[in-house]
This record gives sequence, structure tokens and C-alpha cells, in this order.
Amino acid sequence: MRSLTDRGAIDPLVTIARKRDGHAISSDEIHAFVDGYVRGTIADYQASAWLMAICCRGMTADETAALTDAMARSGAMIDLGASRASAVDKHSTGGVGDKTTLVVAPILAAMGMIVPKMSGRGLGFTGGTLDKLESIPGFTVALDRDRFLSQAHRVGLAVAGQSADLAPADGALYALRDVTATVESIPLIASSIMSKKIAVGSPAICLDVKVGRGAFMKDMPSARDLATAMVDIGRRLDRRVTAVITAMDQPLGQAVGNALEVVEAIRALVGQGPPDLMEVVVVLAGECARLVRGTSDDMAARQEALATIKSGAAFDRFRAMVAEQGGDVACIDDPGRLPRTELFAELPSPRTGYVAAIDAEAIARCALSLGAGRRKKGDPIDHAVGIVVYAKVGDRIEAGEPLLVVHCRTREQLAQIGDPLLAAYTWSDTPVDVPLLIREVIRSAPPSR
Amino acid sequence: MRSLTDRGAIDPLVTIARKRDGHAISSDEIHAFVDGYVRGTIADYQASAWLMAICCRGMTADETAALTDAMARSGAMIDLGASRASAVDKHSTGGVGDKTTLVVAPILAAMGMIVPKMSGRGLGFTGGTLDKLESIPGFTVALDRDRFLSQAHRVGLAVAGQSADLAPADGALYALRDVTATVESIPLIASSIMSKKIAVGSPAICLDVKVGRGAFMKDMPSARDLATAMVDIGRRLDRRVTAVITAMDQPLGQAVGNALEVVEAIRALVGQGPPDLMEVVVVLAGECARLVRGTSDDMAARQEALATIKSGAAFDRFRAMVAEQGGDVACIDDPGRLPRTELFAELPSPRTGYVAAIDAEAIARCALSLGAGRRKKGDPIDHAVGIVVYAKVGDRIEAGEPLLVVHCRTREQLAQIGDPLLAAYTWSDTPVDVPLLIREVIRSAPPSR
Repeated sequence: MRSLTDRGAIDPLVTIARKRDGHAISSDEIHAFVDGYVRGTIADYQASAWLMAICCRGMTADETAALTDAMARSGAMIDLGASRASAVDKHSTGGVGDKTTLVVAPILAAMGMIVPKMSGRGLGFTGGTLDKLESIPGFTVALDRDRFLSQAHRVGLAVAGQSADLAPADGALYALRDVTATVESIPLIASSIMSKKIAVGSPAICLDVKVGRGAFMKDMPSARDLATAMVDIGRRLDRRVTAVITAMDQPLGQAVGNALEVVEAIRALVGQGPPDLMEVVVVLAGECARLVRGTSDDMAARQEALATIKSGAAFDRFRAMVAEQGGDVACIDDPGRLPRTELFAELPSPRTGYVAAIDAEAIARCALSLGAGRRKKGDPIDHAVGIVVYAKVGDRIEAGEPLLVVHCRTREQLAQIGDPLLAAYTWSDTPVDVPLLIREVIRSAPPSR
Repeated sequence: MRSLTDRGAIDPLVTIARKRDGHAISSDEIHAFVDGYVRGTIADYQASAWLMAICCRGMTADETAALTDAMARSGAMIDLGASRASAVDKHSTGGVGDKTTLVVAPILAAMGMIVPKMSGRGLGFTGGTLDKLESIPGFTVALDRDRFLSQAHRVGLAVAGQSADLAPADGALYALRDVTATVESIPLIASSIMSKKIAVGSPAICLDVKVGRGAFMKDMPSARDLATAMVDIGRRLDRRVTAVITAMDQPLGQAVGNALEVVEAIRALVGQGPPDLMEVVVVLAGECARLVRGTSDDMAARQEALATIKSGAAFDRFRAMVAEQGGDVACIDDPGRLPRTELFAELPSPRTGYVAAIDAEAIARCALSLGAGRRKKGDPIDHAVGIVVYAKVGDRIEAGEPLLVVHCRTREQLAQIGDPLLAAYTWSDTPVDVPLLIREVIRSAPPSR
């Protein structure tokens, strides 16, 4: 095995060729390649050839962990200091109407855990936690390192934009993957997500892996592969990791759109959340408690999570975070003050029946067309627009009853969006089971008893 | 099927992703990708990802032919005009001591065929026909299109450097493959070679596919795959193609080095060539006659080839070509006038025995170290230096008898080259069979009878 100091002597063309030929490559080769790419001695066209070889040939769990480690170490590694023992990171692979972080992070803080969360922006049909929070007037996600850590320690949670010095290799490689058809690879997706979590430094990481038509992973086998890959990375890089696979066929909760989702999150924090959102929130809170405390009594932790809502403690943590990050707390106390459109309209149900399916991606594309999301990086977004889904899968509805509400800017938008929204629904004349939301939990180790 | 005018609408990322996922891609997609790369709308990093996907997933015979066609059509397509019916192109995949073109092309011309040959330069341990010819003082390989065609028609042969407007997509993609570990792919190698042959326009193409330790293809299965891929391309693009697979374990003939190989070629043209070189030359001449004339009497054609040597007609054609291309014919009449080193020395055999093997690549690397070749593109080369191998595989030699001769510039070179040269030899105490030289002939169609 080569020593670290020999890395400069590793030929990147040999590394590419070995992966092309289906061989496993060593940790030193992987580190040398990532380092070389960041330093510019390895060109984009060489990195993209390597990424494609990985797409075609795969990576072992050891290789995937080495890639994660190399990308994490390409930039700053955050030291959580005194917060470390209680710290937990939560990440979702991205869904439609997924405001889980806004609800679960304050609950965790109220339970005594610390949630130092660096988050991303939305792109395409998936929303981003940062965009949602920025619909609160004054709220800033640009926290410097000291302020981020100090707030997390004092308040129990801080949500900031990922700084540029965090896993820069991942940022550069992801941008390259995006334009070379090398996104679809379990080891590359897993290492990209985990590199940032490793750099942020929480010893406990809880992952919400979405599966279904509104998620990147369309079926259970691929969702399970991704979840397992990330849990395996944690095992090799000394992190406690749990992955919860949750259904993302229809939107989560009712609201899709930034300010609308904040309103729903606030309602959830005062005990009025939609049942599917609350189910995911409570399960994730239980898994986080399990990871941080090393206990295995999920039921007690779930009860404790619900208690932080009843007591108002979770809401208080959310409000405190908003205040710390410059947001207008009047909007939290009265969500009616959050940005909203002048124009909104209910769409009546075209028929009587049971909702059999709601295409989450189609709903998201409608919200995107209203301006709720970005087609490409850097596009401005409209925080106020969006869609609120009244009837969910399994619900029975009469023709003419309100099916959903559209919040938009113009009458033209309203006229154009009706058909595509209705096309997102599938109907049944007979009762439909409410689909299973929590599909599987994958933990890195058997629970301690 | 899309029409040609729709090609601009084909998304290159979809083309890359389809190949990544192991699907065959359409001719239109391939043409659009190659066109986009040449026009610059597809970036290097996208092309390299595509090339790697091809390395990993392969290409069908139809895809390989479409890629060849697209690369050929990326530049000028030569119209051979009145010469076309008699024209034949000959190509070797590259070996050590391979001066076959210098001998076979004049023979073909003397047999009444026309050989309009565009050739390449040597790189790494393989030599190039252009470099060999340029060891003749005054000889130019820079012929413009009109002069090239007119000379081929009048003299029967012309050997020119490949012009930049010939299959430029191949040139650009090859340069990219060279730095992205995407050279080793049968469809990419086959299409690269054939794209230039297709652009030059000969309806008949005879390929010498080298196999063995001194060749790019190290074993028969891969040589056969490459030969078959090229014959298949010809079948789909309306060319008559034969591939002769010939052994390249030891150097072909005796001389390795530019002027030394010209000397050996001239000796062959006057009936004094080494037997292995003559065997390849005669077989290739027979296959060319078969392709051009549509006859199947190989034996008669081989006899005819030998007759052009006996009559002096082949030598005359070579001399005429040298004269037309500005070379000093005094050097052809008296090869002793070709560039040569002051210094040369025989290396005596270290033992008595039978030569069991000579590592052609090792011999070539020794010649390269003397300056006979290029380590990288654009390096100057020394035409005079080289190695002449006296004892070949199967020969019995006494200790102290001359094994080979080194032509070099300095005593230091002489002192340093002895050990690596001797290390290239393997010995046997018992008689060794002379290895089979012509390993297989793959023709595009059954012979007409």
C-alpha cells in the first residue's frame, strides 16, 4: 500500500483505466484523483470519464466511503466542539411538499439535541429548505461559522446555507455530473450527500430517503441501495447513521410552495399538522433520539416528540431560531403575515370518488410553472405562490367540492394550470387504502438493549 | 426515424445516458453527437463521458459503422475519380520493424493497381511510414490534394501525410481518448482507423492487423474482434475489406529504425528481403489483387507480386514515387547514401542456443531510447539510428557470433543499451519452431468463383 506522501505519483489515467476495466481502486488512488481534480491537475474531461466509468462499473462500499472521505476533506471540516455529543444531522433526498426539517429540527432541539444543519436550495421540481425559510421576511441563511456554531449550541438549532469551503470537491464534481449524464449512480449520489454531512461533523446522521414517482429514486430496490450505501459510508467513517425510506408518490402534507409550506410547518408545530407529515416527523425524531442517546425505545421517544409540540417547546425553538437569524417573528406568531398572493382560487373536484393517486412530480411542475421553484441555478423564486392539496390519496370527495387551492399572480396562470393539476389525479369508484408512508428503516447497527 | 434536419434537436445528454445504460443509439444520434463535438456545442467533458460509456458498454456493428461514417463525413471526402476502380488502400495497425507499406505499395502499383495512401507518424514504440520515407533526403509527404491524386494516377502510388481536413472528428476524438483512458475499445479503435480509410475513398481496403507482444492487440481474440469490426464497417459502408492478422511478437524483418528500414525495404524490392517480411508482403499483395480484381486465385496473384520484383517493375515504381515526391533517387540507387550514424557496433551473442523469443516491444523501446521514435507528439526524431536484428526466432547461434547491430550517436548509448537489448531475448537449448506469421485472414465476402 502506498503511503500518503506518494499520492502525487499516482497516475490518474491508470486510475481511470482501472475503474473502466471493472477493478476496485484504492483509497489512495481515490484521494489522489479528487485532490488532483480540486487542484486542477486533473481536467474536467478526465474527471467526467472517471465518473462515467463509476456509473458503468459501480464502486464497492470501501471505494464509496473513500470517495466520500476525499470529498469531505477537500474543504473545511467543522469542529462542533461542546455540541458534538448531542448533535444530529437530518437530511432528505428531496421530495414534493417536504417541509419535514422545519418541523423535526425544532422538536429535536426541544428534546435536548443539537441540530447544526447546512442545507441546500431547491432545483427543478424539488424545493429547498433554505428557500422555504427565506420566505420569512428578514430571515438570513448566510451565517458565518462562529455564528452558526454558537447559535446551534445556544438555541439547539441553526439552518444555514452550505458554505463554499464545505466539500468543494463535491460541488465541482456535482456540477460536472449534471452536464455529463453521470448523476444516476448510487455510489456517486450516496457519497455526494454524505460528504457534506461528514464535513459538518455530526456524529449522528438521520436520512430520509424518498421513494416514488415524486422522488429521485423511483422504486424500493434503488431506494434501498441508496439508503444502504449511505449507512455503509457512515459505518466506515465512524458516524452513526439511520436511513428511513418514506413514500413520495403524492406530496407530503398539503402545501407545495415556499411560504405555504412554512405556514403548514408552523401549524404542525402547534399541533395542527397533516397526519402524513406528522407521521414522518415523529418517526424521524424517534430515530434521531435513538442515534444520539443510544437507546432503543422508539415509542417513548416518539411520545416525547409529540409532547414537545403539546408543551409549545418545539414552537419556541423554531421561533427562537427565526429570531436569531433575523426573521420577523410576527410572521411566526401570525402566519397570515407571511408573503401571499392577492389571487387564489379553489379548484373544484371534477367528479365524485376516491383519490387513487396524486402525481407528486406533476403537482411540483405546476408549482414550478407558477414561480415557486427554479428551472436553473440562480433563477429568482416567488415565495408566495403555490398549491394546497385538500384531498389526498384515500380521501372520498364529491364532485364540486374543493380539491385544491392555487395561489398565483395572474388570471392567465389560473386558467392554464387547471388541466395539468386535474391530470395529476387518478380516481377510483371504490375505497382506496391510504398508502404506507414509512417503507423501511435501515440502521447501521443493531439497537443497544 | 428522425430526419436529418432534426438532428439539432437531439439532446446529447440523452445520447450519453442511453449508452451509459447499455442501449444501442441510433445513427442520427451518433451523427448529431459527432457533429456537435466538432462544432463545439458538445464539450470535451461530455464527449469523454460518452467515450467512456462506449468503452464500458460497447457498440453494435451498426453503431460502429455509423460512428465511422460520422467521423469520415466530418471533413473532406476525397473523390478518386478515374483512379477509383483500381484503387486499394493498405493499413497496418502498427508493429515493430513494419516497413511493409514501402514494399507492398510499389508491388501493387507494378501490378496495375493504384495506391493513394495517406499515412501517419510514429508515436511511442511504433514507427510511422511517413517518418521512414522522410529519411530519404528531400522527400516530402506534404502533397496537396491535386498533386496527391495526380501522382497516384500517373505513378500508381503516392504516400502523403494525412491532411487536417480529413476526418477531423477522428483527430479531435483521438486526442481526447489519449488523455482520458478511452483508447482501449474495439469499436473506437476500429472506427478511428476506418474513418480515415473511408474519407480517402478507396473502394478496396486491405488491413494488416498485428497481434502479439509488439502490437496493440496482445492476443488472437482481441485481434480477431478488431479485424471483424473493421470488416463489418466496410460491409455497411460499401467498401470491400480484408483483414490479415499477422504475428508481431518479434520485429518484422531485421531493421528497426527509419533509414535502416528504408534500406531493408529497398533490398526487398530487389529480391533480397528477409523471408518473414516477404511472406507478409506477398500475402497482402494477393489479398489486394483479390479485392480489386474480384478474382480468388491467390496463388497466381502472389506469383505475379514476386514477378514484379524479379522484373524490377516494383523497384521502378518505388523509385518513381521518390522522384515525384522530391526525394534524392541517388539514395535509392545506392542505399549506402541514406543517413547513417558514424558509430555502430555488433552485439555478440552471450550464449550458444536457439532464439526462442525476441520481445519486439523491448527492441522498439531500445530504438526509441536512441532517438528513432517519439515519446510525445512533435518530438524530433533521428532518422539514422536504430537496431538491426541478425538472429530471429528459431535461429541457432553460437556464443560470440553477432546477435544484432546498434546504430547510435554516442559511446554512452552503446554502453547503456546492451543489457536491455540482451534482456529482450529468450533462449532455448533445443530447436524452436519458426512461429506462424500469417495467423488468419478475414474477408468481407466469400470469394467469387
